[in-house]
Amino acid sequence: MLKIVKIGGNIVDNPEKLDRFLVDFAALEGDKILVHGGGRVATTICRSLDIETVMIKGRRVTDEQTLKVVTMVYAGLVNKTIVGKLQRAGCDAIGLCGADGQLLRSVRRAPQPIDYGFVGDPEAVNTGLVDRLLSAGLTLVTAPITFDAERGELLNTNADTVASALAVAMAGGNPGKGASSDPVTVKREVELIYCFEKKGVLRNVDDESSVIPRIGRGEFVRLQAEGVVADGMLPKLENAFRAIENGVARVVICSAESISEPGYGGTTLVK
Amino acid sequence: MLKIVKIGGNIVDNPEKLDRFLVDFAALEGDKILVHGGGRVATTICRSLDIETVMIKGRRVTDEQTLKVVTMVYAGLVNKTIVGKLQRAGCDAIGLCGADGQLLRSVRRAPQPIDYGFVGDPEAVNTGLVDRLLSAGLTLVTAPITFDAERGELLNTNADTVASALAVAMAGGNPGKGASSDPVTVKREVELIYCFEKKGVLRNVDDESSVIPRIGRGEFVRLQAEGVVADGMLPKLENAFRAIENGVARVVICSAESISEPGYGGTTLVK
Repeated sequence: MLKIVKIGGNIVDNPEKLDRFLVDFAALEGDKILVHGGGRVATTICRSLDIETVMIKGRRVTDEQTLKVVTMVYAGLVNKTIVGKLQRAGCDAIGLCGADGQLLRSVRRAPQPIDYGFVGDPEAVNTGLVDRLLSAGLTLVTAPITFDAERGELLNTNADTVASALAVAMAGGNPGKGASSDPVTVKREVELIYCFEKKGVLRNVDDESSVIPRIGRGEFVRLQAEGVVADGMLPKLENAFRAIENGVARVVICSAESISEPGYGGTTLVK
Repeated sequence: MLKIVKIGGNIVDNPEKLDRFLVDFAALEGDKILVHGGGRVATTICRSLDIETVMIKGRRVTDEQTLKVVTMVYAGLVNKTIVGKLQRAGCDAIGLCGADGQLLRSVRRAPQPIDYGFVGDPEAVNTGLVDRLLSAGLTLVTAPITFDAERGELLNTNADTVASALAVAMAGGNPGKGASSDPVTVKREVELIYCFEKKGVLRNVDDESSVIPRIGRGEFVRLQAEGVVADGMLPKLENAFRAIENGVARVVICSAESISEPGYGGTTLVK
């Protein structure tokens, strides 16, 4: 089972949590890929360089200067810091962004209705390269920077989306809207693990012990109707179900702190 | 013949020269590795972040904050920008630093006589990984950040030294002072190409047409005695001869603008 784990800013920004998580991640058995977000460092650097940070609906608008900063911070500082820590923990990690070996090809998002600038949506994964690196015993650490091969542009991309594109592609599905054109056919059993602030999908948002262990599509519809699942959890779950419906064997939503527990102590989504 | 090409700040800092060089580099046939320096961007970012830049004998003193900036700029911005441009030029590039797959292990330099901070000297190369990536048709783009595996630290490293360590190791030699411990034995025919400001070693430093086409150790000693070779050229040539004497087939010193010419229009050092 190939494990693809995504961590966000709440872990990346906290050195102690990050260290603890990476030791647990290093101990996970089998082939694995870590996808990381960027965290607040990019915003701090932008501020120091007098680059205005504009967020629309929680997503960063990426102009040319901001693209340089996120490339530096995500693909440089965060990525290589994680690789160094994993190597120290005995995990043979290699850090890549979407341009490396055209790992993650994307297309720049249309400027309507909202112009996010240099932001891309994944279109294809170089599954042959991923497979070759994993088979060589390497663990991939992936920064959320993708590559528009037509224009030769680096593009800022949502890390949740990168993780699900990788998972779908490695499971033999098509991660984008266009035709996937990778010559090598890879079809692995894939588990996608989203780490976030809570322990899982909670029946009662104020009670961390109310984790719902398993949710199928039918249950998801019921939970929406009951108002148990709402706000930021909705797109996350939609994304997760799309992965399952495109060949990913299992998707888990859990806390980064529970990654060493059986079933990761979170919510498992099933078909 | 494996070609290892090093470019410095004079190319990295000049987008037009960089673009032209990368198109020429992409067209070079056979297996190849590009090692790049950092350029002035790191100094600019340090200034914006109120981090003082201290240079001793032309080398950057790297404190903890400076290490973060050079990791960002060298392994992030510069590395991924080059990878994107090479991909666009039809060259299947993958960008790495020394921590990735423990590509370049180093030891932190002793604080006496000068404390350069987080600066490392190469000790071992993961030649098996380099060989595997090259055999998969990939071109390596290497940032001058190495990895102290004992301490789990990223270290800033001179790009000339990174290039010669890679060249010596891939030719089957030992790039460091300690024992090389890589289990895979790799022994390639290697050509090391240093690109710098001049067309080559000049008989008359003011006359770009006075390139000396070939220099052996004997000739090098004579040129030193005559005062033709002096100043910054001395350590560069010493480094180059050390590479040749440790198994590298050929070392060329030339201008990045001449990389598509036969013999690179520069000075070839021979045993």
